[in-house]
Amino acid sequence: MASHPDSGTIDFGGISRVSVVGAGGFIGLNLCRRLLESGLEVKAIDPQKPQQEALGGYQVDHEPMLSADAFSGSSVVFHVAGSTEPASSNIHLREDMAGTVGLTLDVLEAARIADVQQVVHISSGGTVYGPGARVPTLETAPTNPVCAYGISKLAAEGHMQLAERLHGIRAFNLRVANPFGPWQDPRRGQGVVNAFLYRAMIGAPIDLWGDGTIVRDFLHVDDVVTAMCQVTSYSGDERIFNIGSGNGISIANVISDIEAMVDHPVEINRHPERPVDVPHSQLDISRAKRAFGWQPRIGWREALENAGNWIEHHIMEARTS
Amino acid sequence: MASHPDSGTIDFGGISRVSVVGAGGFIGLNLCRRLLESGLEVKAIDPQKPQQEALGGYQVDHEPMLSADAFSGSSVVFHVAGSTEPASSNIHLREDMAGTVGLTLDVLEAARIADVQQVVHISSGGTVYGPGARVPTLETAPTNPVCAYGISKLAAEGHMQLAERLHGIRAFNLRVANPFGPWQDPRRGQGVVNAFLYRAMIGAPIDLWGDGTIVRDFLHVDDVVTAMCQVTSYSGDERIFNIGSGNGISIANVISDIEAMVDHPVEINRHPERPVDVPHSQLDISRAKRAFGWQPRIGWREALENAGNWIEHHIMEARTS
Repeated sequence: MASHPDSGTIDFGGISRVSVVGAGGFIGLNLCRRLLESGLEVKAIDPQKPQQEALGGYQVDHEPMLSADAFSGSSVVFHVAGSTEPASSNIHLREDMAGTVGLTLDVLEAARIADVQQVVHISSGGTVYGPGARVPTLETAPTNPVCAYGISKLAAEGHMQLAERLHGIRAFNLRVANPFGPWQDPRRGQGVVNAFLYRAMIGAPIDLWGDGTIVRDFLHVDDVVTAMCQVTSYSGDERIFNIGSGNGISIANVISDIEAMVDHPVEINRHPERPVDVPHSQLDISRAKRAFGWQPRIGWREALENAGNWIEHHIMEARTS
Repeated sequence: MASHPDSGTIDFGGISRVSVVGAGGFIGLNLCRRLLESGLEVKAIDPQKPQQEALGGYQVDHEPMLSADAFSGSSVVFHVAGSTEPASSNIHLREDMAGTVGLTLDVLEAARIADVQQVVHISSGGTVYGPGARVPTLETAPTNPVCAYGISKLAAEGHMQLAERLHGIRAFNLRVANPFGPWQDPRRGQGVVNAFLYRAMIGAPIDLWGDGTIVRDFLHVDDVVTAMCQVTSYSGDERIFNIGSGNGISIANVISDIEAMVDHPVEINRHPERPVDVPHSQLDISRAKRAFGWQPRIGWREALENAGNWIEHHIMEARTS
């Protein structure tokens, strides 16, 4: 059983009931578990019932359909439902628009009707700023997304702010860098670290686009979950927060650290670089620290170790059993 | 018959055939006429057939449906189809997304299939920058739209740039300020100058939101059309251009200039200010001047006079005949 490196409970003040849209996904499962551990009632909204083993023995109230009824009695709605991935979003432009912007409009309309006080939305720190941004990148940097996923996330952020302006819903956009960790399925191409780890662990080659010099800002999902919980008690005026590790690491270094961990070289299938890949993505996270005291607590190697353990126990053992 | 203050023909080099999406609307009609005057074949795409009297005796090839076939043989596609207006976009969020972003995706897909070389898209200089922008506002200023119209226009711009990145279509976004002039129907609430002019001319009260201190950047539609035509021969690397008058004028001044023109006071129905109204919108237009030598040629009073003449001859006379 993979332990969670940071699974401390959170003080939610007077909040007793919350809703999670996208509860069955990678971030959603980790978030639900933490909310439940912290003593909250959680309405888990997702077409798929959240995997019980991800919830650590707690029970969620599952609801397959998003609606105002599903939000009834919730003070906070966490909107972590994604649609496509950055790389595939450029092929499925309309689906990305509907799944990202359209879904956010649905969440905000239901939240307004259900009189929800706060919506916390996971945006994309890796795609909204674009290739020209100074790194580490501040929230005030110009936005210039170069993939459909980033374009749609930016529009979804805009609708969050508009809902606050028009209807008074406190609407937070967390621009999350590159999260990884438990419940990110490495077999579905979701997240490069878990995917590379898994391929290395089963002795399969990995696919590398470009020469490995692109830099990403990886952090453990538990740190993201902590930020999502902590922002709910923030009472200041900022609405957009970068959530990253504060560090950048090249894909080549990710691979060599994985090779060191599995203790054998990894075969690499090299492909040309992709136009959707920003060369260097690394967030300045000082605003979140200043505003609500958040900072990442799980270092890169510990996070990698934890993800590897989870893959071993939840993917490899399931595969061979 | 209203004369056009700037109806000079444009040299389009080797271009002989173009398409206009949204040819039946305000900007579309003015653009079609100029393209026809300049000797081009024009495919006019719009559910409604363009009003013949707007085209000055020339013939367009009308096509009600957008498709790759409709673009066949066109070197340039002008995409001037709007959806909602800024003020109503906040009520019809999904329609705005579909009508602005979805339609732009349709245009770009059809352009790719038809092997169109250039798409010129009319974006919104008045809504993409948001209320915090320094004025006059440069193209490099942070974007922060506070209405759904601006959110959708910004996403449409992003998809234009993505189409260039992925498919090599030269994709220009012209961020137009507040155009007015002939063929902007003042009875449909489209454009504050024409609407105020018309109400003043028929002796009806005008609706004013806020105290009249908000500043806008009004320019004659002929200057916008000139910019759209001139940008097609630009060969540099910029893709976003502000198109405005270079000046700001308060709504209170618009009203007093209209009162002077009609030579009687105008009755004003005062309403509270709207959250969608940016206090001061005024564009820095030096990039377009530097890049392709464009600058507005029609001053405020001449433009106002021309719009008034057009309303008198095309709306008032039609009304009383």
